[in-house]
Amino acid sequence: MFKRILIANRGEIAVRIIRACQELGIETVAVYSEADKDALHVHMADEAYCVGPYASSESYLKMTNLISTALKTGAEAVHPGYGFLAENAEFAEICADHDITFIGPSPEAIRRMGTKDVARETMREAGVPVVPGSNGLIDENTDVHALAEDIGYPVMIKATAGGGGKGMRAAQTAADLDKCIQMARQEAESSFGDAGVYMEKLVVEPRHIEIQVMADSHGNVIHLGERDCSIQRRHQKLVEEAPSPALDEETREAMGEAAVQAAKAVDYCGAGTVEFLLDAHKKFYFMEMNTRIQVEHPVTEEVTGVDLIKEQIYAAAGHELQVKQEEIEIEGWAMECRINAESPAKNFRPSPGKLDLYLPPGGLGVRVDSSMYTGFKISPYYDSMVAKLIVRGKNREEVIARMKRALREFVVDGVDTTIPFHLKLLEHEDFVSGNFTTNFLDTYSIMEEESSV
Amino acid sequence: MFKRILIANRGEIAVRIIRACQELGIETVAVYSEADKDALHVHMADEAYCVGPYASSESYLKMTNLISTALKTGAEAVHPGYGFLAENAEFAEICADHDITFIGPSPEAIRRMGTKDVARETMREAGVPVVPGSNGLIDENTDVHALAEDIGYPVMIKATAGGGGKGMRAAQTAADLDKCIQMARQEAESSFGDAGVYMEKLVVEPRHIEIQVMADSHGNVIHLGERDCSIQRRHQKLVEEAPSPALDEETREAMGEAAVQAAKAVDYCGAGTVEFLLDAHKKFYFMEMNTRIQVEHPVTEEVTGVDLIKEQIYAAAGHELQVKQEEIEIEGWAMECRINAESPAKNFRPSPGKLDLYLPPGGLGVRVDSSMYTGFKISPYYDSMVAKLIVRGKNREEVIARMKRALREFVVDGVDTTIPFHLKLLEHEDFVSGNFTTNFLDTYSIMEEESSV
Repeated sequence: MFKRILIANRGEIAVRIIRACQELGIETVAVYSEADKDALHVHMADEAYCVGPYASSESYLKMTNLISTALKTGAEAVHPGYGFLAENAEFAEICADHDITFIGPSPEAIRRMGTKDVARETMREAGVPVVPGSNGLIDENTDVHALAEDIGYPVMIKATAGGGGKGMRAAQTAADLDKCIQMARQEAESSFGDAGVYMEKLVVEPRHIEIQVMADSHGNVIHLGERDCSIQRRHQKLVEEAPSPALDEETREAMGEAAVQAAKAVDYCGAGTVEFLLDAHKKFYFMEMNTRIQVEHPVTEEVTGVDLIKEQIYAAAGHELQVKQEEIEIEGWAMECRINAESPAKNFRPSPGKLDLYLPPGGLGVRVDSSMYTGFKISPYYDSMVAKLIVRGKNREEVIARMKRALREFVVDGVDTTIPFHLKLLEHEDFVSGNFTTNFLDTYSIMEEESSV
Repeated sequence: MFKRILIANRGEIAVRIIRACQELGIETVAVYSEADKDALHVHMADEAYCVGPYASSESYLKMTNLISTALKTGAEAVHPGYGFLAENAEFAEICADHDITFIGPSPEAIRRMGTKDVARETMREAGVPVVPGSNGLIDENTDVHALAEDIGYPVMIKATAGGGGKGMRAAQTAADLDKCIQMARQEAESSFGDAGVYMEKLVVEPRHIEIQVMADSHGNVIHLGERDCSIQRRHQKLVEEAPSPALDEETREAMGEAAVQAAKAVDYCGAGTVEFLLDAHKKFYFMEMNTRIQVEHPVTEEVTGVDLIKEQIYAAAGHELQVKQEEIEIEGWAMECRINAESPAKNFRPSPGKLDLYLPPGGLGVRVDSSMYTGFKISPYYDSMVAKLIVRGKNREEVIARMKRALREFVVDGVDTTIPFHLKLLEHEDFVSGNFTTNFLDTYSIMEEESSV
């Protein structure tokens, strides 16, 4: 097992990784930007080093600074968390070049899953259901109109380098098609420096269901059930839960097996998530694989009892998985609300600032993953997350009731937060019934916008 | 179900009860003394009323004030928590006289279990193993020396009205006996106004193992496994865990069945705890039954998934138990450390004061039940509890590692706490091995006392 791990991240995920390391008796090295010198992960780690100024590109994304800190401190492994360099194959390679273990899959697996049209083809070949589409990038030789007619409108044009909803355009009819392709290409070029796009059938009113997988370097791959992440705003997940209110046992099993096939197809190692779209007929389609730990991983931990960060570390250290597929049981229900420092009544405008009083909720069934404390200043330079509030209970009804009481007792004075949004969402009839798709927040205006005076 | 409940308590247990009520959609009425106007339970409840000055006897113990507040606010039930009036049969009767449901067992059950020699005889008749002893109070007609010889030295003299370690004396030999009886009588008279004492064999090096029971008004009684509370300082529990490292399945079953018998013998309703002593030969003896929720109830909740406060409320409202005996499964491990505002290096002297910064630990497997917040002033008038830190995990080893990391990240600035004591205890070889008795803290000095300069 590793003696010392460097955590190449900040915020709640850095705190989460430090906690797992401490429980495993592993020393931790934190890194931080000049904006983060008072951050909780800096206080909690055994050692902490400044790796650059405020800008992420000069600090948390600065590979040379991270590698030199790892070498200087004798860290044998680097945990990238999520975001920043977590899905950067080059960083994984550079770590390997310096005999530092990158806690994640191989650079090859990251690349194949990170290039969306390659991922799609890899999955198709592995027998994982994919959305009908162009089977590769479209170019000047593609008869895009014939292809779209063949697939059937509406169709999506998607950037192969895409992510976070960027470089995506839906064409409802043939009249839209050329313009959509042009716009998707332009956005892809400007966002990712890669204008490559492909075409897929647009799955109408889908649910976003993802499967957590875990693999070791000995060829063992397991799945740990699904998370339903259909509640999204502009492709950003706001609420996640496990299990999904939409899945029957048969579909759950089929999706789990498909996810394991997906991981095996790229010789996966570590924690990964296979995202699917589920249509109204319970047909599911591969969307993408995230080759890292995800923000919403705690809901899976709460219903399975498996510590996913510890499993990542064990897998990276060459151990076998600590659990077997037949030991995985989904018990009860869990839900996560992402509490952000944003003003939901002002179109979710970021609300950075100092926390005059911070008191997380507690008690039975309540877990808070956060890096906040009274007096901490939420910086405008990074994401606006205040806390992940995770609740577990015996069933969905109890979890919703518990989440509401936990949201109400959460004290975050000094900044606006999305707590009022979550409270309204949890009262919404269609949310309570479990009858919702990724269109939910487009369909319903949960928050009344304040008039802009 | 009740629409509104008055909580006749303060601190973390008042917060705990408010949380359960909120999740059940029940309105809450808090009461507070003048010392507690800024207390968290006052903020969290739907309504809050001052019931008197600092002294408990004039506020939290003032039955007329509590009853009149319940009547005034339309509360249909009163939850007494633990301590204060929780085991006061007269209060339960007065509630009934005013058509207010006392959330707890009948006055009769409280009385029979509260009078220790009556409890002992009731248990003996019900076939629950009791420590060999005097079968009733000893008086001037008892040949105490013959009785003690018959039982076998060492023997304990115990006040029938006793509690908290008061009115108890151990006689090692016949030479000590008369003096022990006299001292126990005197202390019993001055502490409880009742000089009645009885004699029991002293169980040497016992473990304190207690069984959680839950009963409804329809005759259903279940047990929810044991808690090991052997780590005590002057009969005050400091650490509790479930399951017990000392029990095999056979003894566990036998103790569970004995506890159910004990509850049935007094037509019990609600949550109760049957405390046993377990000797080195795995023989167990009834010690007492606590007719209320206990401080350490969360460890049972964490390994069974049952919300004991909700069960209490359901039972008091006349519902059947929400779980059946065959549905109770003990999963994983849980442990609670009681964090007090005391100076462990100064003989656990209370350390009241203002909390300059309060940040409870979080993350996977960590639960905090507390009523603290940054800026709160811990008053010298009541108990010194800061928080109950409860940790769950897949096994005892993981739980100990997790508890240590949670204790280390717990920030309580402004007062001394028992966190350093707990950290040392968790490193102690005999604690880690699970090989300890109630004598543990008499045998080992965990904290080096600071020299009193």
